[in-house]
Amino acid sequence: MTEEKRRRAEALIQASKTCIFVNVDENGKPQAKAFLKTQAMGLKEIWICTNTSSKRAAQVKKNPEAAMYFYNEDTFEGLMLSGKAEIIYDDAKRKEFWWDSMTIYYPLGPTDPDYALLRFTATRGNFYCDLGNEDFDVDE
Amino acid sequence: MTEEKRRRAEALIQASKTCIFVNVDENGKPQAKAFLKTQAMGLKEIWICTNTSSKRAAQVKKNPEAAMYFYNEDTFEGLMLSGKAEIIYDDAKRKEFWWDSMTIYYPLGPTDPDYALLRFTATRGNFYCDLGNEDFDVDE
Repeated sequence: MTEEKRRRAEALIQASKTCIFVNVDENGKPQAKAFLKTQAMGLKEIWICTNTSSKRAAQVKKNPEAAMYFYNEDTFEGLMLSGKAEIIYDDAKRKEFWWDSMTIYYPLGPTDPDYALLRFTATRGNFYCDLGNEDFDVDE
Repeated sequence: MTEEKRRRAEALIQASKTCIFVNVDENGKPQAKAFLKTQAMGLKEIWICTNTSSKRAAQVKKNPEAAMYFYNEDTFEGLMLSGKAEIIYDDAKRKEFWWDSMTIYYPLGPTDPDYALLRFTATRGNFYCDLGNEDFDVDE
């Protein structure tokens, strides 16, 4: 992928409030759900907040294969990042990502045992833009 | 699911220009891609246009398990429909869905062998709204 396209892919992530997390459940069925994008580090690492008690957290523990999808329906740009997801309870990160209104989801605050972070790490990607799409290695 | 929620889920589909098609590739990895929503019949059946030569068409022929995802990031509504996808070349449908500018994708017109339809048929769904989500049977 050219440097210019990589910058466009990164800009698409940065401009997105949400990301669509995609995984496979215990019966082999594909799953999708929009999440607020908590933090993105380039194309490589994306963090979202979830619940320990959620279906997604249980599924990810059994099968870490995952994708994150971003798109802009006005520009017809779509970015799929493929990699692995893991559930993390790092207290420094949980505090870093905390904001007060999150108590509606996690009444016990930033150390609520139900407040889980999901870290997604991408290895491969596919970027659709200008009516064509291209596979690429994230680390290239 | 209540009748009121079902109507909200249908309205979300109707208001969406695009849908996100989700499936599993031959290596068990989840895949996602936005498509223009060509036709939706309630919550049960969604049609999109694709290419015979595309990765998605090849994947669907091997593994029909699929989902369609719709969301509105302003209202925090998200609808996942789960079911099966199939590739179809019905000439009446291909003509029904045809519009002239599609020649940029299918130069030979509505009977171009590369012009394939994907029909998705849902059996189950999950609707996220009002900060909670609910599984439901599409046929109920």
